Amino acid sequence: MNIILASTSTLYGGQYLEYLKPQLIELFEGITEIIFIPFARPGGISHNDYTQKAKEFFATININVKDLHEFDDKVEAVNSAQGFFTGGGNTFLLVKTLHEFGLMKILKDNIESGKPYLGCSAGSNIGGVNMKTTNDMPIVYPSSFDCMELVHFNINPHYLDPNPEIKHNGETRETRIKEFLTQNDIKVVGLREGNWIRRIGNRVTTEGSELTRIFEKGKEPYEVESGTEL
Amino acid sequence: MNIILASTSTLYGGQYLEYLKPQLIELFEGITEIIFIPFARPGGISHNDYTQKAKEFFATININVKDLHEFDDKVEAVNSAQGFFTGGGNTFLLVKTLHEFGLMKILKDNIESGKPYLGCSAGSNIGGVNMKTTNDMPIVYPSSFDCMELVHFNINPHYLDPNPEIKHNGETRETRIKEFLTQNDIKVVGLREGNWIRRIGNRVTTEGSELTRIFEKGKEPYEVESGTEL
Repeated sequence: MNIILASTSTLYGGQYLEYLKPQLIELFEGITEIIFIPFARPGGISHNDYTQKAKEFFATININVKDLHEFDDKVEAVNSAQGFFTGGGNTFLLVKTLHEFGLMKILKDNIESGKPYLGCSAGSNIGGVNMKTTNDMPIVYPSSFDCMELVHFNINPHYLDPNPEIKHNGETRETRIKEFLTQNDIKVVGLREGNWIRRIGNRVTTEGSELTRIFEKGKEPYEVESGTEL
Repeated sequence: MNIILASTSTLYGGQYLEYLKPQLIELFEGITEIIFIPFARPGGISHNDYTQKAKEFFATININVKDLHEFDDKVEAVNSAQGFFTGGGNTFLLVKTLHEFGLMKILKDNIESGKPYLGCSAGSNIGGVNMKTTNDMPIVYPSSFDCMELVHFNINPHYLDPNPEIKHNGETRETRIKEFLTQNDIKVVGLREGNWIRRIGNRVTTEGSELTRIFEKGKEPYEVESGTEL
């Protein structure tokens, strides 16, 4: 496999995908066209406008982008594609739509056959075992929470450290992930913004500018450095 | 109906349920015993310890508390109860458990017959039309997101205003609720901590120390004062 699962598409103050540019040149080496999966986007900007944003970035590295939304036969489109990019938005909407179109397994099979995959945020959640560690609001009801399991753990994108100054009674991210571990025995990778998971063949590493926080059932959470194999 | 749906059980720096005490004396007037529904609590403290916390508070207003978890026949326990309190925790776990025990409809029927109900946080979410505006992490998969619809809108507990200083790319609460409205046509009441919904008979009002933010499809969000009928 040849995949990147990133915490976010855009760093604070930065341009769309800019911080990942050198990695994306490597990920998509030899590829002239990818399919963009825009289903996570619930509104605000339409699927077309959203794809346009991806098109503009990928034009700078000489890759054409086609929107999966525009294909009548989406299964055939995925099977014929050279590579994939799934953008962020709402994970419930993304997972519901992929299951409705019967695409979760098809996409997984294509990626496992070696086609490069980039996911950001919700697009990274679907690379995990299931979507039970998303931060998103459950605005729609998917037929299943199961995802592609491109890696043998779950991802919590946009991982946020507790802020002791907040006078608010909502759970911290760490508390939420620990609650997940009371109900599930799946490792959770808390990906801070600026970090991503890289899988090349069977080697899975955490990469980027920040430490990565790992949560496992029955252990205290711990931090690993960029380059650590997971 | 005679219900309170509160944003939170505990204000910052305060004691459990203390800020609601005068309201709870009124809500549960003439009641000597209530059933506590602890199913939202995923871990950290056990159901028994959690019930103990509720027991201690309610003892100060001369109400005995029984834990629904301890009854073999939970349907009979709900049907025989004088009143109810559902505490906070994880809404997915609460809704999954209530549906599994066949209790969502039974509880609704008992509350609609006039028995007093207090919900806090996740316990307030289940008073809405569905749980699609919870803030919680989807750590388990419920058989349905449908809730009791004790009021004809959804609740977003612990409502948080956007913080312009946060250098983080996760969605704000307002963005999430607007995303919900792209997929659903149900009013959402953003309940800041310190606020609650009060229903007496057919009269539904927003109460508490803060303004309440209302979200409706096709409208700009707006604020209403304590005492406003919804």
